[in-house]
Amino acid sequence: MARKQGSHSDITGPKVRDAALRLIARHGCAAVSMRQIAAEVGVQAGALYNYTPDKQSLLFDLMCTHMDELLAALADAPIYGTAMARLEAFTRFHIRFHLPRRDQVFVSYMELRNLTPENFAKVEALRRQYEDALETILKDGEAEGVFALPDTRVSTLALIALLTGITNWYRANGRLSIAEVEEIYWSLVRKAVVAA
Amino acid sequence: MARKQGSHSDITGPKVRDAALRLIARHGCAAVSMRQIAAEVGVQAGALYNYTPDKQSLLFDLMCTHMDELLAALADAPIYGTAMARLEAFTRFHIRFHLPRRDQVFVSYMELRNLTPENFAKVEALRRQYEDALETILKDGEAEGVFALPDTRVSTLALIALLTGITNWYRANGRLSIAEVEEIYWSLVRKAVVAA
Repeated sequence: MARKQGSHSDITGPKVRDAALRLIARHGCAAVSMRQIAAEVGVQAGALYNYTPDKQSLLFDLMCTHMDELLAALADAPIYGTAMARLEAFTRFHIRFHLPRRDQVFVSYMELRNLTPENFAKVEALRRQYEDALETILKDGEAEGVFALPDTRVSTLALIALLTGITNWYRANGRLSIAEVEEIYWSLVRKAVVAA
Repeated sequence: MARKQGSHSDITGPKVRDAALRLIARHGCAAVSMRQIAAEVGVQAGALYNYTPDKQSLLFDLMCTHMDELLAALADAPIYGTAMARLEAFTRFHIRFHLPRRDQVFVSYMELRNLTPENFAKVEALRRQYEDALETILKDGEAEGVFALPDTRVSTLALIALLTGITNWYRANGRLSIAEVEEIYWSLVRKAVVAA
């Protein structure tokens, strides 16, 4: 696994990212050393620097990779048709993408404070792209007269918080399947936005 | 400020709690030492142990204090009348209580993983009490025939995530007042739960 050059999500090996994600989700970035990450991967601390120059780069890479994967999956998702159809598709996409990524969601939220201002701005810009995709659907639905929202921007953030919150309580072996969770949340989202 | 005996939220001095909350919210519990907390309070490290036996107790105390204050404020809040009236009062209460407590919300979520299993269970029981207050309102509204929800328990968790998410984006000097935020979120919550 050689160090790859490429987009910002490509500079760290998948094994290094997986190990770092596990450790940072468990202990927090400030409490995890490059040496611990190397040990988790099974390489010498020195070898880790073939993959990533420092912990800040590694953290930034984790967050960008998460956002890049999200935006790439969104671009491939079958989201088309009326605003109502697109909102339903977006809701189901968001749930299915995030449910298996609890650690990524947790680290992306919790470790924002540990990014340099420059890296923070880049991650926020990616996040904003994702939010804008939902906001466009909400605006289109208002233009079609099927949605009625008090504030499109705030409603966008509210719906994302509502949906992402599932990662806090959902357990794969619990009483509800992912399909059932999708139905419940789609019902809440649809009613919240629909014009009376 | 002597060490007080009493309920679990009373064993640590307010100055110690404030300093610990600031530092833990900024750096994470695992990265903050008792020595740093003592320095932030302005006492010798040894003196800190007059207030709290160790970092686990301090973290547990921070989380219990937050939940105790929340439950006490809820008990005092003007939440009465029909289920719809109580849901509106609960929504406004939740927003007003949490908006000025970003650090508490952040630490309470992020540091759950650092509690011992016993302390985790106690904090979860307090959180469950709060969730149950909302769930009771939702159930009463269903019994009255004014609310229609696909799953009362999941809807409870969904609404709490929706409302608590405000602390992620709200800024006191932003374009919206707290009163405006309350109106937007109450509109979303009301529509999400109301029977068609």
